[in-house]
Amino acid sequence: MAFVAGLRSNLGAAGVLTGPDTAPYLTDQRGSFTGEALAVVRPASADETVTVVRACAAAGIAIVPQGGNTGMSGGSVPTVAGRSTDALPHTGRDGDDRDPSTPSIVLSMGRMNRIVSVDPDRWTITVEAGATIESVQQAASATNRLFGPDWGARGIATVGGAISTDAGGNNVVRYGNMRDNVLGLEAVLADGQVWDGLRALRKDSSGYDLKHLFIGAEGTLGVVTQAVLRLHPTTPHIQSALASISGLDRLMALLELAMDRCGGDVTALELMPVVGLERVCEKFDLARPLVTCEEFCVLVRLASAEPVAERLGAFLAEASERGWVRDAAVAVTEEQETRLWTIRDELSPMFLWEQHKHGVKLDTAVPIDLFGAYHDEVRRIAADLAPGALSYGFGHVGDGNLHMYVLPTRDDQVAPFLAVRDELRERIDEATFAFGGTLSAEHGIGQLLRDRIRPQKPAVEWELMQAVKNALDPQGIMNPHKTLPP
Amino acid sequence: MAFVAGLRSNLGAAGVLTGPDTAPYLTDQRGSFTGEALAVVRPASADETVTVVRACAAAGIAIVPQGGNTGMSGGSVPTVAGRSTDALPHTGRDGDDRDPSTPSIVLSMGRMNRIVSVDPDRWTITVEAGATIESVQQAASATNRLFGPDWGARGIATVGGAISTDAGGNNVVRYGNMRDNVLGLEAVLADGQVWDGLRALRKDSSGYDLKHLFIGAEGTLGVVTQAVLRLHPTTPHIQSALASISGLDRLMALLELAMDRCGGDVTALELMPVVGLERVCEKFDLARPLVTCEEFCVLVRLASAEPVAERLGAFLAEASERGWVRDAAVAVTEEQETRLWTIRDELSPMFLWEQHKHGVKLDTAVPIDLFGAYHDEVRRIAADLAPGALSYGFGHVGDGNLHMYVLPTRDDQVAPFLAVRDELRERIDEATFAFGGTLSAEHGIGQLLRDRIRPQKPAVEWELMQAVKNALDPQGIMNPHKTLPP
Repeated sequence: MAFVAGLRSNLGAAGVLTGPDTAPYLTDQRGSFTGEALAVVRPASADETVTVVRACAAAGIAIVPQGGNTGMSGGSVPTVAGRSTDALPHTGRDGDDRDPSTPSIVLSMGRMNRIVSVDPDRWTITVEAGATIESVQQAASATNRLFGPDWGARGIATVGGAISTDAGGNNVVRYGNMRDNVLGLEAVLADGQVWDGLRALRKDSSGYDLKHLFIGAEGTLGVVTQAVLRLHPTTPHIQSALASISGLDRLMALLELAMDRCGGDVTALELMPVVGLERVCEKFDLARPLVTCEEFCVLVRLASAEPVAERLGAFLAEASERGWVRDAAVAVTEEQETRLWTIRDELSPMFLWEQHKHGVKLDTAVPIDLFGAYHDEVRRIAADLAPGALSYGFGHVGDGNLHMYVLPTRDDQVAPFLAVRDELRERIDEATFAFGGTLSAEHGIGQLLRDRIRPQKPAVEWELMQAVKNALDPQGIMNPHKTLPP
Repeated sequence: MAFVAGLRSNLGAAGVLTGPDTAPYLTDQRGSFTGEALAVVRPASADETVTVVRACAAAGIAIVPQGGNTGMSGGSVPTVAGRSTDALPHTGRDGDDRDPSTPSIVLSMGRMNRIVSVDPDRWTITVEAGATIESVQQAASATNRLFGPDWGARGIATVGGAISTDAGGNNVVRYGNMRDNVLGLEAVLADGQVWDGLRALRKDSSGYDLKHLFIGAEGTLGVVTQAVLRLHPTTPHIQSALASISGLDRLMALLELAMDRCGGDVTALELMPVVGLERVCEKFDLARPLVTCEEFCVLVRLASAEPVAERLGAFLAEASERGWVRDAAVAVTEEQETRLWTIRDELSPMFLWEQHKHGVKLDTAVPIDLFGAYHDEVRRIAADLAPGALSYGFGHVGDGNLHMYVLPTRDDQVAPFLAVRDELRERIDEATFAFGGTLSAEHGIGQLLRDRIRPQKPAVEWELMQAVKNALDPQGIMNPHKTLPP
């Protein structure tokens, strides 16, 4: 095809993949979405990105920006003939606005992975969009600075993808979401113009803050090509503890106690179900870190310039005295610390039960004081509709962000579960809205939630978003059929 | 006039002011801008705000939202016949897009000042736009929570105004700007629709984050009527120290040392010129807090759940050992603490020299590592062009935010100063751009900077902003002749 040949003559063979080479770029990490594309285009610079976007704009070809392709909502892979091939046909709604005939390319940012500069005195790092989160963490660390955001996929997930989904992760309670760590952006707009917003300012009240439009937009308004990210002081003293808790009703009291006794040193407070903990330990042949376990544990991490053992101990002692914590294990060696966080990183049912792909998976957030009540409400709905299924909730207590799965864990449970799955999902979504929550806390809308997200917001909000989309991408070529409801 | 009579019949006499009663609303706090309006309208609810906006939209009348009217850039007062009456005719550029014949009303939010709810377990407070910053601080404090943003005008400045300028203040290094403390917003749009975005979520990746468009938009996209604000743990132990420093070249080292030794406890690190400190002490008959003073001091404040004296002392001792601090006074009584912060709050030349109104006043921010170099560059330009004038720089070191004035301090200096003022301002603006800075760190663009701000950003950025403005306010009635350059 002439279009692809044109791109190849501009970007070279390494810049344009077709045929079987494109396969890894067309299916997301979970294997839930597979799409089609004319080619996978891999620019090596912002200039090459401009060339690609201009060519697409001229030919009316859609652009699907892609980072590490670790996204959980199918935002980084193309659709097929206007319909996802997801194993989870979320609502099966018809009447879509999609034009199944629009061809697209995947714009993979993986070759643009340079650390452009680290500026410790400025407390910033400037990187290309394809740099991995881990590479940013390491480059910061080499100059005695810390990059805050962190999550399991750090070695593959990229800065551009993290910005585009406003990714969160484990450290949000201390360092905020990705949004809070971006000082400046460069983006290639839908018409091929480059917006250079690569500022390094802590304060700037000079008009609309456009970077916040691109953050969380899942590539529907333009392609993020570079970013100035904020750095923090390092925390050489890191210590975590796993605590068995008596139930979810005292979670907020526990959080407040942690904030009170350990102040700004709390970098994570994670809920973990014991069933998952045991399964991870089994899978990786790890010693189980606790003796007395009930249904839930929390994983607390403190980090500071000074030793934190005393603060951590005082917090656990007081929580235990009050009966909120039944048993606790403090990591006192590097190995123990690593083990606790391996358990956390591997806790997703995605890694633990083959049947996860049939399950209902949530990345919901509610106001933090409702975290426990919302967890119990979802479990109640699941017990009602799918009594054989496992209700499995984990996530970030300090942010009200619950990753809950309801899933069959044996093959013979799959068929009965599938029979009620749509209703289950609908009931849970309604509960989420009733709790003032969001269906997407940190994974984006992508393809996954597009048909389900509309009732979450008033109509006027979607109209405003659509107005912004029309203003910035009038041709509608930037990652179509994503984010905005049909 | 029928239009005003119609508003009065809807809002009652208390809701619509005309004639001499409008005067305080038509001139800004500094007395720099005076405008004209058909009426000052004071709605008591979001519903009344809708009524007013709808009436204005139907009649094509412009709306100038106003909070406490403490803004420094003239954003909260109307223009007159398309031209500000500012005593500082900034560049005198002509060829404006303004339509001098468009009449306007001032929409004063002062009656909508309710604290709607305080939710300590949620770590939020929900307030109407007209609530003052101080009233929010007090309501939070009453439930053992802390509202972070703070600055001198706390008793008059409102939440709506602070949101609309993305106000900063003294605590930004710890709690961020106003933007960082807003979880949700309610706004009345230009067509009178209400957008209810009053969420209380710490994480939400469900489409474009529209609240960030309204934050810092100076009322040009809609009227903020209510907000959900974020609260923090209280810090019962607060202690400040004033330190005499040897020069600006070690400011970043001092900041790093403070971050290193005192971690997250640093809530402020302010630069103060000794000439101002002395003048405030004289004006308020305060004892001078230091013996050995050179040209500059820094005011450092720590705040924590635990006593901070030891950390503060250790930091000062080490800074002194390294020769970065010459002398220091730690506040050990409530009275001393208050005195230090009175000096800081009263430090603006606006309060100290009658001639300030003729001066060049900056609210610039640069990348933090350039703070000292930028200060010196501005002083060099001033010494070159206006050798008799006082170069007076103070501000927020941790944010790179310098409030610098170049001003005459005697009446006989005024005329020669005015002769070079425009050139001085132009040279400083150019230097600000060359340093990668912003002309407005925390005061907005308003009327003051509209003619000067354009070179700060690439053309494509202004085009994007205008596209957003056109999408959200196609009629152009929301605070026209503000923010966006002509």
